[in-house]
Amino acid sequence: MANLFEEIQPVAYKDGKVFFLDQTALPAETIWMEVDSVETCRDAIRRLVVRGAPAIGIAAAFGMLVASRAAPKGSFEEYHSYMKSAEEYLATARPTAVNLFWALKRMNKKILESREKSLSEIDAIVEMEAMDIQKEDEEVCRSIGIHGQEIFAAAAEGGFTILTHCNAGALATGKYGTALAPVYVARERGLDVRVFANETRPLLQGSRLTAYELYMSCVDVTVITDGMAASVMGKGWIDACIVGCDRMAANGDAANKIGTYGLALLAGAHNIPFYVACPISTVDMDTRRGNDIEIEERDPLEITEGMGKRTAPHGVKAYNPSFDVTPHELISGIITEKGLIRPPYAKALAEL
Amino acid sequence: MANLFEEIQPVAYKDGKVFFLDQTALPAETIWMEVDSVETCRDAIRRLVVRGAPAIGIAAAFGMLVASRAAPKGSFEEYHSYMKSAEEYLATARPTAVNLFWALKRMNKKILESREKSLSEIDAIVEMEAMDIQKEDEEVCRSIGIHGQEIFAAAAEGGFTILTHCNAGALATGKYGTALAPVYVARERGLDVRVFANETRPLLQGSRLTAYELYMSCVDVTVITDGMAASVMGKGWIDACIVGCDRMAANGDAANKIGTYGLALLAGAHNIPFYVACPISTVDMDTRRGNDIEIEERDPLEITEGMGKRTAPHGVKAYNPSFDVTPHELISGIITEKGLIRPPYAKALAEL
Repeated sequence: MANLFEEIQPVAYKDGKVFFLDQTALPAETIWMEVDSVETCRDAIRRLVVRGAPAIGIAAAFGMLVASRAAPKGSFEEYHSYMKSAEEYLATARPTAVNLFWALKRMNKKILESREKSLSEIDAIVEMEAMDIQKEDEEVCRSIGIHGQEIFAAAAEGGFTILTHCNAGALATGKYGTALAPVYVARERGLDVRVFANETRPLLQGSRLTAYELYMSCVDVTVITDGMAASVMGKGWIDACIVGCDRMAANGDAANKIGTYGLALLAGAHNIPFYVACPISTVDMDTRRGNDIEIEERDPLEITEGMGKRTAPHGVKAYNPSFDVTPHELISGIITEKGLIRPPYAKALAEL
Repeated sequence: MANLFEEIQPVAYKDGKVFFLDQTALPAETIWMEVDSVETCRDAIRRLVVRGAPAIGIAAAFGMLVASRAAPKGSFEEYHSYMKSAEEYLATARPTAVNLFWALKRMNKKILESREKSLSEIDAIVEMEAMDIQKEDEEVCRSIGIHGQEIFAAAAEGGFTILTHCNAGALATGKYGTALAPVYVARERGLDVRVFANETRPLLQGSRLTAYELYMSCVDVTVITDGMAASVMGKGWIDACIVGCDRMAANGDAANKIGTYGLALLAGAHNIPFYVACPISTVDMDTRRGNDIEIEERDPLEITEGMGKRTAPHGVKAYNPSFDVTPHELISGIITEKGLIRPPYAKALAEL
């Protein structure tokens, strides 16, 4: 089912049906997966059919819509008890994804607020809330893109080249993305922005997703392996790094795809500014510092059977953490929908 | 044909027969390919069945032995003319491999020096010379391993963990390897040395070859993706990095597999010593500094069709340099067969 929807987006709601773009099949195939149960929804989030913090939130919100449709409608208590179970079940899909919990809580809050309404009205309210979450995220991303233009102030005549890691683009959000939002907005405004994309092993979100969405959007993109980042920086080809963020601590420490921390160190060694782009909702004020963030470990087979082919001998160990934490000291600025924040972050984040 | 030979080595000579371990089939299959003609030998070197500069030289020497067995034995002139053809033919296997030409010349020189002997004696001399080339490389590697023990002086009770990149192990040499030689020797001496191996995209020599040979040798090895190196360093798991070298400039700048430069920067940021292990023959005194080393660019398909599967959309650009250059300032020591060299390198290398 190619080109079912016009724009690059991870979650689509059409004719009362919920679809996830299966990002595990990209770039080879464009498959829209229909989500018709909470089980399908949780499994899809778990298998990274949908990934990227904001997109996971949106996916979970639509998972709650699917649950609402299936929920018993005898009484509010019965309905709400079902929805509470659905919320708890969906919350187990990804342990590090703060947007997942945030979206689920917001949906549940809306349901509780609507308890005096009829259950069919609540169904419609749940639908509206899921759509709102998606729409708001799109607006947040566009604001990030606009505030991000500040980093191109130094752009020379020859254009501006950024290096990014993993995928914090349209495919990870409602639209535009976080790290890639400044790129898309700059392009709309006629600035010549080029992108180097770390392929991002083990799951290759950089080559599979970032390269895909930029190429489809006619942005000049070059894929490199993760080990080549230092080399292209050393050649003077990179003006800035921009990455997304899965969870930010109150002090500005940023948990993001494994490899981000190393990239920040390399950028620092080459005096290249290193920016983290994320909505304010990614900031978890209850987490004081990055060390307090639990890092999910994934199946070693993602490394030893990369791309479906055995790449290490049977029995060999592999270590496969999903994220690392970039200390705030290595971050030149945080691009949010409220503006570009400069250090010290603790104060600025608290104010927001 | 698994475990045909006890030790990990790229070229084996047993019962008068020559075998190459087919490294293109690793780690899925252990295939020992019998080399019974110069054509088979040349084709194997060409297809990277044997790779790694020292191993290629050894393979070519045994190719000359195979040729000698097949050569006409009517007169020395007839024999030598045949062997000269074989030499020229084998020299075309890898047009830039210095060790290939070096080994072939050495074999031919030995034949010419033996012209007064009988042809059956010459056959035995050729056999001896091929075995000597292998043996000498093994001794050089063992010396590197012995001198490398110095870096384990700081080993705590809990053992010692090194991080390596690409494959500079037994599979690339006569035996022991260069970067891995200190590990093998340490093990012989009962030191608990563990290894983290960067998988080394795009061609995965780390997971396919380094993990293979260490695992087969019962060394504790854990594969990580290249982007995880900073993370494991940050956890305090790594005591030292050791890498090999493809070509070293007179000032100690080291050209090695892409990703090495970034690894050296990350090691520096974590105060982890970073060592380069190589035989003195790798030092090119005619190259003043690393910037003078030409870096080969390889086919972008190695990135965009990694592991035989399309990983980036058709049409997307990829940049694929084979090597990078690590400036000597980032190198804590150079482990050679003559000893562990400390900065300043220019003087120490010139003296050797």
